[in-house]
Amino acid sequence: MSVGSGAILVVSEANSTETAIVSSLENSGYLIDVVTAADRCLSIIKVKKPDLIIWSLLSRPDISVLGCIKSKYKNLPVILHADKDSMAQVVTLLNHDADDYFAGGESDSELLNQIVLRTLDNARKKEKMRILEQDQLAGLRVQQGLLPATPATLGGFEFAHFVRPSLIMSGDSVNYVQLGDGRVIFYLADVSGHGASGAIVSAIMSGLFQRLVRKFQHETTATSADMLDWINVELLPLNLEQHITMFLGILNGAQNALQYSNAAHFPAGIVSNDESTLFLELGGLPLGVCDTEYGYHDISIDKSFNLVVFSDGVLEIMSEESIKGKEMQLHLLVQSGNTDIDTLVDHLGLDEISEVPDDVALLTVVRKS
Amino acid sequence: MSVGSGAILVVSEANSTETAIVSSLENSGYLIDVVTAADRCLSIIKVKKPDLIIWSLLSRPDISVLGCIKSKYKNLPVILHADKDSMAQVVTLLNHDADDYFAGGESDSELLNQIVLRTLDNARKKEKMRILEQDQLAGLRVQQGLLPATPATLGGFEFAHFVRPSLIMSGDSVNYVQLGDGRVIFYLADVSGHGASGAIVSAIMSGLFQRLVRKFQHETTATSADMLDWINVELLPLNLEQHITMFLGILNGAQNALQYSNAAHFPAGIVSNDESTLFLELGGLPLGVCDTEYGYHDISIDKSFNLVVFSDGVLEIMSEESIKGKEMQLHLLVQSGNTDIDTLVDHLGLDEISEVPDDVALLTVVRKS
Repeated sequence: MSVGSGAILVVSEANSTETAIVSSLENSGYLIDVVTAADRCLSIIKVKKPDLIIWSLLSRPDISVLGCIKSKYKNLPVILHADKDSMAQVVTLLNHDADDYFAGGESDSELLNQIVLRTLDNARKKEKMRILEQDQLAGLRVQQGLLPATPATLGGFEFAHFVRPSLIMSGDSVNYVQLGDGRVIFYLADVSGHGASGAIVSAIMSGLFQRLVRKFQHETTATSADMLDWINVELLPLNLEQHITMFLGILNGAQNALQYSNAAHFPAGIVSNDESTLFLELGGLPLGVCDTEYGYHDISIDKSFNLVVFSDGVLEIMSEESIKGKEMQLHLLVQSGNTDIDTLVDHLGLDEISEVPDDVALLTVVRKS
Repeated sequence: MSVGSGAILVVSEANSTETAIVSSLENSGYLIDVVTAADRCLSIIKVKKPDLIIWSLLSRPDISVLGCIKSKYKNLPVILHADKDSMAQVVTLLNHDADDYFAGGESDSELLNQIVLRTLDNARKKEKMRILEQDQLAGLRVQQGLLPATPATLGGFEFAHFVRPSLIMSGDSVNYVQLGDGRVIFYLADVSGHGASGAIVSAIMSGLFQRLVRKFQHETTATSADMLDWINVELLPLNLEQHITMFLGILNGAQNALQYSNAAHFPAGIVSNDESTLFLELGGLPLGVCDTEYGYHDISIDKSFNLVVFSDGVLEIMSEESIKGKEMQLHLLVQSGNTDIDTLVDHLGLDEISEVPDDVALLTVVRKS
């Protein structure tokens, strides 16, 4: 006989019918209460706080009460005790949130015990799942608090972003901050892990970026490569299991200039100017892996400048067969003037897809003045 | 009729027996394969990759194969199809990891459909749970990588710590770092949330502490209060939903001095010197809440100095009724010479308790020279 612990409330209009199953469950270690009037059920649940209900259909009790119980105590599992005459009712009640059924008689007490054990175990797992999900949602809120406003107009450019995590939290992140002299520093980063581990590394990255902005506030000659070098040197002593790919840019509206550096971030950013739409250069090693030096690129920007950066998660939700095909599709999207974040999210179906295999992040920059 | 999706493998030694349930499941939208020789089961699972197995006991198949399936495909659910003659077998097989049973006949196809739906749903939830747990464990590894070595001898003091999270990840953290001049800065911090959200804030704190150490490396006149002030100023712009309580100390072996500050951390640290065991001062507001200024305290330390700091989670696992009683018990523990981390963990039963309601952290410091 299996050994159980917990309190069970047996609901049976005819008290005598359930004697055998009550004593069998008591022998297994459960604390049993019996209620013979279904309408007293709710008040007894409130006092006794059972872990499980066994609801007998043998004596045709008022089953409308079951609906009340399930609406009030969503996580309290209910097992139906039926005989072959009440199997049609079982089907109906299972459709109405009853958790399981037991169709045996006195001799099947071992089976009943198993069903009870399994149902209690499922209820505990459900509760654990709920707690873990709540926990990750709380983590997500912290994480969202670290992201910048979207959209935001800084230094004559409108920045916007979209992050869709594959689990609850995300390893992808973006940020953009305007310096006192009008330049804007921005990045899109992708941590090699996703979920909670990715989120922790993202949070560290977020703290680093705050420092970076202060450190380079007045260092007007520092390049985007100097900034990646600095981030890398800061990350290395942390010996993280994970690395970070990053696209980092500095926009200078007054000088019509974009400077950018890439730490192994793929796919490449896509920039549109008056006449052309181009992939930016790839390159560099991920951050936090080894001592390395980054390069940088300067490009002139026109009045109609815009920039779109995706994280590589976007490639996994696209239907084209080859990576090259996916890249060309992204290029085409941007070239066709889809540079607004909502339009891109729409086109890629990011709000409709039920699950994404990897975090997906988008960052858009549009020149406003 | 409920509508399902997925592939089901029906295992039945006598093909004809299951015709009704096969057609009923097919009508519900499932893709059905039937295997009539149990020993071919494993090779068919490999090819067909079913989402669920219905194992018929009606024709007495070789059930030893079930053990092989369950050991090789742990997450593949198995429903037993039984009649009243095989109910004893059902009990045995449920004990051996079969997931559910169906004891109905042809006319109960609706019930079978419900059992199948529920079993598939449970399997999906289990898989989601596994992914969330894996995710949090990966987060935990990142988090553990941010903690210092334990034990570690720094500046003539042995530091050790123990962190027991209430979920998988923790909002409690500790760190200790020796400066170039021999002083050691250390802290025990407790984020108001636990789990993933607490862990993210802890990671931010960990990054801040690295900066703090560098910033105050050569500022020998800076007090522990200056350091808390600095952390607070750094945290405020992040607008975190959560706050941090912290005990922060600076040990100076050469000058036989401990300086410490407290940001609302409770219970108080317990310090033992040659002749006395004392609670240190409480006070201050938590970090990250509002603009505030912290105070500091200087105490002389003897040759036999040791210090124990607990996070408030420890109070929740203690049996004494009042907070006062719990504090006195902690004081007594330390006064009786239990200042070794393993001994404290033992005494408090921290390795044996199956669940802790809040994160528990311990930090011990023992003077070595």
